[in-house]
Amino acid sequence: MPVNYSTPAPEALFPVTGVRLGTAEAGIRKAHRRDLTLFEFSPGSTAAGVFTQNRFCAAPVTICQRHLAIGTDIRALVINTGIANAATGQRGLQAALVTCSETAKILGCEDRQVLPFSTGVILEHFPTDRLVAALPAAKADLRADNWHAAAHAIMTTDTVAKAASRRIEIGDKTVNVTGISKGAGMIRPNMATMLGFIATDAGIPAGLLHQLVKDAADESFNCITVDGDTSTNDSFVVVATGASGVTFESETSAHWPAIRAAMIDVARELAQAIVRDGEGATKFITVSVGAGNTPSECRAVAYAIAHSPLVKTAFFASDPNLGRILAAIGYAGITDLDASEVRVWLGSGGKEVLVAEAGGRAASYEESSGVQIMKDSEITIRVDLGRGDVGTTVWTCDFSYDYVKINADYRS
Amino acid sequence: MPVNYSTPAPEALFPVTGVRLGTAEAGIRKAHRRDLTLFEFSPGSTAAGVFTQNRFCAAPVTICQRHLAIGTDIRALVINTGIANAATGQRGLQAALVTCSETAKILGCEDRQVLPFSTGVILEHFPTDRLVAALPAAKADLRADNWHAAAHAIMTTDTVAKAASRRIEIGDKTVNVTGISKGAGMIRPNMATMLGFIATDAGIPAGLLHQLVKDAADESFNCITVDGDTSTNDSFVVVATGASGVTFESETSAHWPAIRAAMIDVARELAQAIVRDGEGATKFITVSVGAGNTPSECRAVAYAIAHSPLVKTAFFASDPNLGRILAAIGYAGITDLDASEVRVWLGSGGKEVLVAEAGGRAASYEESSGVQIMKDSEITIRVDLGRGDVGTTVWTCDFSYDYVKINADYRS
Repeated sequence: MPVNYSTPAPEALFPVTGVRLGTAEAGIRKAHRRDLTLFEFSPGSTAAGVFTQNRFCAAPVTICQRHLAIGTDIRALVINTGIANAATGQRGLQAALVTCSETAKILGCEDRQVLPFSTGVILEHFPTDRLVAALPAAKADLRADNWHAAAHAIMTTDTVAKAASRRIEIGDKTVNVTGISKGAGMIRPNMATMLGFIATDAGIPAGLLHQLVKDAADESFNCITVDGDTSTNDSFVVVATGASGVTFESETSAHWPAIRAAMIDVARELAQAIVRDGEGATKFITVSVGAGNTPSECRAVAYAIAHSPLVKTAFFASDPNLGRILAAIGYAGITDLDASEVRVWLGSGGKEVLVAEAGGRAASYEESSGVQIMKDSEITIRVDLGRGDVGTTVWTCDFSYDYVKINADYRS
Repeated sequence: MPVNYSTPAPEALFPVTGVRLGTAEAGIRKAHRRDLTLFEFSPGSTAAGVFTQNRFCAAPVTICQRHLAIGTDIRALVINTGIANAATGQRGLQAALVTCSETAKILGCEDRQVLPFSTGVILEHFPTDRLVAALPAAKADLRADNWHAAAHAIMTTDTVAKAASRRIEIGDKTVNVTGISKGAGMIRPNMATMLGFIATDAGIPAGLLHQLVKDAADESFNCITVDGDTSTNDSFVVVATGASGVTFESETSAHWPAIRAAMIDVARELAQAIVRDGEGATKFITVSVGAGNTPSECRAVAYAIAHSPLVKTAFFASDPNLGRILAAIGYAGITDLDASEVRVWLGSGGKEVLVAEAGGRAASYEESSGVQIMKDSEITIRVDLGRGDVGTTVWTCDFSYDYVKINADYRS
């Protein structure tokens, strides 16, 4: 059960002019389950993406980067769940290329205008034939109002489909921003999450879109972690069709801040949904680290806390065993950290209590306050490093029996 | 239940001439449980230690380092379990100092000749009075053959007491090396483990002993991980009494290699015992990374594998979901790693199978071989990075329901 999250209703996901989506059963994930998703974009669309930095990056990630390097006038995304096509060598690259060429053939575009994505088990051969056989059904299913179905079709161990949407009025025109994401385990994105796709019918030139996708990733998918495992397939792609009639030329264009904010909002909602649906999650935890010297040291501290199995199991147990948070801060790698300057607060529901200061437990801290806060399902850990004016925020979840169960049973 | 480990019998732990040990009930951990341990060394002993690099290092760690900086002629160790005296500020330092002065008083030595150690819950005030009240009972219990009892008295979540011993004949003299350790969670030592103590009746000057304790740590406690959490209290101390009549002046002294090897053997056995007794462990896993360019990149890869919750849960499930190992190698931070040069083997019982090469699954690999190996309780993952001639080995355990249970229930 996700933590305080449910999939938006189909009518809350605004269609994006110039985008159609279709899903089909390819029999890759399991029988009688829609596991193939096709996005079709109108001519003139631009695309940009960020991808995993894992050195065993999946074959489709390699092909996505290759195609985007040739041109950003992307016409289609093809996504399967079930097999990741990662650690599959030359044969895997060939499978991803065939996926693109067969998709291009039925949609009438060039191979390089198709971006492929896969998610699922690593180190298993990719069943190209099954994917190709299902492409006509996915094409026949293409509709503008199919976001809800697409959000379901890209799921793996997700327990809930993830989607978000914003609509902005600019003059007499309407701009839509709608996206979907998937992921629940092997989540510690480094550039992007498992899979995230956002489309807008604003027109955005490739260079500006590339900057936007990076900025949006840095404020969303790059701030989440479930288990610290950076996946081989992480991909986050944004496509702008321009079909709304509203176009932006640069960061100084009128209304650009509004569209940028909408894009980041959607990305953050999709990213947080992944944490809320983290494998076995029962709590959504915000880790805010401030008063640091550099963004990287703040991130190191935030991730040390967010990855600590001891911190995560204490949150699962609703046990304010908060010394574990101090231990994580202490081993995060800031060699000249002055522990006596560090302060830590625990909060929920708009209230927070000072837990530690001057190298130890705060005199005002009472165990009963900690117990009360730990019972909540939305908890904030705030750390003041007492050495600078830089900060960062990371979102994570707790660590439960079900994480072990889900990952011990994944392939069975 | 530890993985293929049981405490040596009392008679297998050779007394070390010049060392007496005593234990007592201080009521810090829980009632009717020996939780206080006292080591007494004969005059002229030398000591050396390595300690946690956690910036929230515990008060006793600070005092140990201060006392060793003044002089290495240590006469006593005093160890409690139950409360870690970490993140306790100035009040914690005072508690550790009082512990030393009271111990010095009853043993008749200087305060600076006592080293204090604590293990248990972080961020809780230290009950100095209870410890001091139990010191006379611990002193009354001092005996040379008390290693077995001491190994039990320093346990926290350990399910088994950990001890190791070696005896070497040098001419007509006998040199003994005996040690104990504790630890099962919050284990990713960085300089030393939770607590490890080794004594020998060889005579070793302080400088040489200091080098030996570092070398021994690097080949033992610094190569293990249970959950990646570096503790606030990690301490590993070696004391040489010289009471055997065998002394060493330098690394070129006759028989030095034998005593050095015995010391490293004992340290490694104690370190591996901690992993075998890792919280919830059902498997003992050796991760060997070779053909790297630098020791640090080999360690980064080994620890990425050893810390991955996905790898650890797959081992718990005996599921050869080996793509997770490749993913961990890929995100370990070697930015110029050529995935197509990496080879991975899985082994047990002296046999191993090639799992991955050329960026994907090895043509010769059969799932049935992987399944067979994964059923074993002692498994080796061997990685060839294909880029140099440096290697390293790390020991870890799997990740089970019981890890979550133990750490969710720890304080209750």
